[in-house]
Amino acid sequence: MIVVMKSNSSKDDVNKICNIIKDEGYETHLSEGVEKTIIGVVGANGKKENLKSQLLTYKSVEKVVIIVEPFKLTGRDFKPDKTVIDIDGVKIGGKKPVIMAGPCAVESEEQILETARIVKEAGAEILRGGAFKPRTSPYSFQGLGEEGLKLLAKAREETGLKIVTELMDIQHLDVVEEYTDIFQIGARNMQNYPLLSAVGKASKPVMLKRGMSATIKEWLLAAEYIMSEGNKEVILCERGIRTFGERTRNTLDLSSIPLVQQISHLPVIVDPSHGTGKWDLVIPMARAGIAAGADGLIIEVHPNPGEALSDGQQSLKPENFKMLMEEIDLISRAINREDN
Amino acid sequence: MIVVMKSNSSKDDVNKICNIIKDEGYETHLSEGVEKTIIGVVGANGKKENLKSQLLTYKSVEKVVIIVEPFKLTGRDFKPDKTVIDIDGVKIGGKKPVIMAGPCAVESEEQILETARIVKEAGAEILRGGAFKPRTSPYSFQGLGEEGLKLLAKAREETGLKIVTELMDIQHLDVVEEYTDIFQIGARNMQNYPLLSAVGKASKPVMLKRGMSATIKEWLLAAEYIMSEGNKEVILCERGIRTFGERTRNTLDLSSIPLVQQISHLPVIVDPSHGTGKWDLVIPMARAGIAAGADGLIIEVHPNPGEALSDGQQSLKPENFKMLMEEIDLISRAINREDN
Amino acid sequence: MIVVMKSNSSKDDVNKICNIIKDEGYETHLSEGVEKTIIGVVGANGKKENLKSQLLTYKSVEKVVIIVEPFKLTGRDFKPDKTVIDIDGVKIGGKKPVIMAGPCAVESEEQILETARIVKEAGAEILRGGAFKPRTSPYSFQGLGEEGLKLLAKAREETGLKIVTELMDIQHLDVVEEYTDIFQIGARNMQNYPLLSAVGKASKPVMLKRGMSATIKEWLLAAEYIMSEGNKEVILCERGIRTFGERTRNTLDLSSIPLVQQISHLPVIVDPSHGTGKWDLVIPMARAGIAAGADGLIIEVHPNPGEALSDGQQSLKPENFKMLMEEIDLISRAINREDN
Amino acid sequence: MIVVMKSNSSKDDVNKICNIIKDEGYETHLSEGVEKTIIGVVGANGKKENLKSQLLTYKSVEKVVIIVEPFKLTGRDFKPDKTVIDIDGVKIGGKKPVIMAGPCAVESEEQILETARIVKEAGAEILRGGAFKPRTSPYSFQGLGEEGLKLLAKAREETGLKIVTELMDIQHLDVVEEYTDIFQIGARNMQNYPLLSAVGKASKPVMLKRGMSATIKEWLLAAEYIMSEGNKEVILCERGIRTFGERTRNTLDLSSIPLVQQISHLPVIVDPSHGTGKWDLVIPMARAGIAAGADGLIIEVHPNPGEALSDGQQSLKPENFKMLMEEIDLISRAINREDN
Repeated sequence: MIVVMKSNSSKDDVNKICNIIKDEGYETHLSEGVEKTIIGVVGANGKKENLKSQLLTYKSVEKVVIIVEPFKLTGRDFKPDKTVIDIDGVKIGGKKPVIMAGPCAVESEEQILETARIVKEAGAEILRGGAFKPRTSPYSFQGLGEEGLKLLAKAREETGLKIVTELMDIQHLDVVEEYTDIFQIGARNMQNYPLLSAVGKASKPVMLKRGMSATIKEWLLAAEYIMSEGNKEVILCERGIRTFGERTRNTLDLSSIPLVQQISHLPVIVDPSHGTGKWDLVIPMARAGIAAGADGLIIEVHPNPGEALSDGQQSLKPENFKMLMEEIDLISRAINREDN
Repeated sequence: MIVVMKSNSSKDDVNKICNIIKDEGYETHLSEGVEKTIIGVVGANGKKENLKSQLLTYKSVEKVVIIVEPFKLTGRDFKPDKTVIDIDGVKIGGKKPVIMAGPCAVESEEQILETARIVKEAGAEILRGGAFKPRTSPYSFQGLGEEGLKLLAKAREETGLKIVTELMDIQHLDVVEEYTDIFQIGARNMQNYPLLSAVGKASKPVMLKRGMSATIKEWLLAAEYIMSEGNKEVILCERGIRTFGERTRNTLDLSSIPLVQQISHLPVIVDPSHGTGKWDLVIPMARAGIAAGADGLIIEVHPNPGEALSDGQQSLKPENFKMLMEEIDLISRAINREDN
Repeated sequence: MIVVMKSNSSKDDVNKICNIIKDEGYETHLSEGVEKTIIGVVGANGKKENLKSQLLTYKSVEKVVIIVEPFKLTGRDFKPDKTVIDIDGVKIGGKKPVIMAGPCAVESEEQILETARIVKEAGAEILRGGAFKPRTSPYSFQGLGEEGLKLLAKAREETGLKIVTELMDIQHLDVVEEYTDIFQIGARNMQNYPLLSAVGKASKPVMLKRGMSATIKEWLLAAEYIMSEGNKEVILCERGIRTFGERTRNTLDLSSIPLVQQISHLPVIVDPSHGTGKWDLVIPMARAGIAAGADGLIIEVHPNPGEALSDGQQSLKPENFKMLMEEIDLISRAINREDN
Repeated sequence: MIVVMKSNSSKDDVNKICNIIKDEGYETHLSEGVEKTIIGVVGANGKKENLKSQLLTYKSVEKVVIIVEPFKLTGRDFKPDKTVIDIDGVKIGGKKPVIMAGPCAVESEEQILETARIVKEAGAEILRGGAFKPRTSPYSFQGLGEEGLKLLAKAREETGLKIVTELMDIQHLDVVEEYTDIFQIGARNMQNYPLLSAVGKASKPVMLKRGMSATIKEWLLAAEYIMSEGNKEVILCERGIRTFGERTRNTLDLSSIPLVQQISHLPVIVDPSHGTGKWDLVIPMARAGIAAGADGLIIEVHPNPGEALSDGQQSLKPENFKMLMEEIDLISRAINREDN
């Protein structure tokens, strides 16, 4: 940590700040520049965030810069090798990108089974589908609940696809855990700490969506909440951030893929459906996600988007999904990703 | 709702879309412009969001514009008169702005009692203080828990101040309800729907902070979640939004105050402490919030910010808070707000 | 255009607004919904922006929605077929993506010639290099000026590459036009209307970078300024937008590629160097740009980035550029873009 | 400047980087922390931006943090006392906030004279009005040009008000300088460096609007461009930034007022008209601007907003402006600003 003193600070000011730092158990390291005095704070990283906050209350302190990233379990320093999550042979974070596909919400047995067959045949390995739906308005369709989970399990039984479905409510943890293969934590809950801690104690992998306005640091610290409870199988999912852009639902920030892969060992996938909100943008952005190096995609597919109970406008038709899967395969090979 | 057809759409395309709309139970109203055909959709507003989503799956549809705001209980159409929440004589939403003040977190009996006395004397009516703290990192101080609630109650007993404190976890609802006068729902939980529904069934008023990247619409729909469960006493709190600004913790969006007051009858207050993250910006922005017409302020005050366990850098010292209260009083009178 | 009246507006209010609209030469088309009255405004689009602004001054008007896009010359309605700009056989907007590469700034004869040879050999067709540099600080290196233009021309002579270089100052138009093949208008000047009008009268194609916070509409209207002066050869360049992201120079908004291609016939290319600001993100984002369907890339390459006079941190080394070109070729084929 | 080395960097890596720094004429100052090695770079600040860029090209370097602010002439270190600009007795930056008011555009002699009388009587000291208008679309009203300037001068003659009007085109500098008292540089031209340099050599004060997505640093560096050419009379104007907010034209960032006042000695004023884009938000936000400590306001007023040729929706009617002026007066006194 570096403390920058104001230009007009006196020797006494500097000494006072140094003493406060030493009282907290750190060493100080003084460096007098031409215009500013800088105090280096050396010592284990434990409570530096709080020390920073305290030092900023003094008028003689201009700014405090934390040097060491706050990530422990999520960082490459902790685990240099990439994490590969293996769900009965489906590997997330391996050489081959993993495709998760399915409807926004589970609507009926017919709908989920038909979708499952379609995405399986096109090459997907994991079936997505919401049973508990977070909706911006309390008056919108909220999902089928446990009935939806049972239908997902039925689709798994028939097709062999694994399942990913959202957990919104800590009180549903047990029932969701009973049916799903992967917990999805939605963007709105990225900083719902009790929920993060709860899935951190659970026995299934967790796919953690990036919050709508979350920095990379906040996103990884949310993963840290999960991992610090013991669950080391976390998948990150970029799903677009909020910007001034008014023609897409969100702005898909694909640069987060290589950025996260530099800092963290966790696999990171892309959701071009929520990332754009428009089915005709999903295809180019899915291709771009793979080209940027994503470890997989999660894509909304519906047998008949015009009749979907939610998010029809961003769901691919079966034939478009099939075409996309072929392009993705070629792009994966182009950047040497294919083959597990 | 208005459906705009693409320029090159045929009569058949238009008919097809009209039929879909009629099948959902709405009337259509055709208007052929020089360049575009527009279909007006007339009927009660129930499921228009979903119809919009479905219509956008057709290639002949360029865009769909929803005309009627989705707010019911929170809107001025539902209740033209401003809501005044009366907590044993402390009125929020009345003529006089209400000041909530206190430390970021309850740290000790001495700290909370001392702060309570200071803010009471300066004119505050409600004591803030976190017992359960949402922290970005799992390794930061997480609050004293129930012990903190008890200390808040003790401070209330001594000073007569009301209490506002954050509820993060649905499992703590009962214990928080036992001690607090107002539930605070934090920015990170603005779209934590199970939590919103839970406080919607509770017996105490709820202060709902604006999410970090929430639009006015999303914020009011979050309030709608609470109100639709029966609890009509909701206070909105502007606490800054996330922008590209890098010298403040958030960008305090004071224009949300008059905007919300036009649309909704709910009281709206300002948090300049989190809105700026810097104690020396809190004073000007608190004044500005009152001048913009806010129904109150929530301000972090600490007897000794340099020793605070969290957010010391944005806490006011007692003497600064006192000065601010005097300025606020004059500004309230300038815009004719003083006197309950 | 659609005028939405407030819920509580009277028949008189509606009549008054209708009369104002008719006085401006438009027809009105009334539609009374369950909750709102809507007035359709029918007629040629000439001055609707101003009429909107006037109508919004009436208290009975809730909002005004413009339906027809304001684009004329840049829109697909004006010219359904994609524009292909042919510079002596180098086609921009054709089937094959075009690669522009070179240093941020022209620094010396040796540097620009060496870079030109490197990028030519790797497959680039256009040489980039700044002679006049827009720098955030007046104290930074501002470019070699006309001397830089002469060096670019020398590199063209030797390698056959075409040239793209920035025009910042209307007073340099003649000298830049003498040497360059394509004018670059930088992000900071996207709404410098005198400059846009000037290049609109010039005889060379213009590459128009997206402003740092420009919407798609603003970007295309800036192109409209150029085209309305007669110059129909405009290339759009996505170079990242400003968001809250703090680990990249900008947030590269690749969804703008397919969005612009739907609305406009103009070619659109991607600048992953400014879009990320970090050389190790340039490669994945360049690949992603091509996969998203871009008509080309503009990439900073320097023989020795560690000695560059500007933007070294985002410049590719020759060997990395070469590898990237091979991957780009494969991705182009994967999405069926290769071959002119 | 501080260079942070990657965790896995070797002694050789550190030495290499130190040598590069020394070769550029700086001293190094090594500090080995528990996890990271940090190199302090000591020496005059001349070319540190470029050195930073070069160092970031090395894989062993994690990040480079510049410590000293890049402001020279605009900073408080250069000139601790606040700048007061005196235009024939009208003082900007003094104790009393200065009010600039008038129409968006000069439309006719009658309109500008009537407005001038109205705003003068209400207490404004400076008349605003555009003669050359930057419009997003080339098809919108572009202003009356020199004719507009003459009308402004006529209004000055009659009322004694000073004039502020926009300069967009470097080729109009002489004609605008002939008539105006203050040059306005618009938000779109905040980084139009040739224009900034030109007004830097002119003889009249410059009001520099903040760019739509400009950081405080970029804004002050733009002022630095003007001041470094010799013109020391720069007024900064906050006019809102671009965010995700969709119900206002911009998001007025009032925290920039106290922030800029801490860093710079230049006066800073607020434009609540462009900052909100809605006349009914102008009043609360104008009051808030004064309460936040602004040195003045610039407000659009039109005798008949419903007939304005531009920006009618954000123009105040005379009676509302008058009421606002009274409130502003009271707020100024409340924060001890009144009286020159």
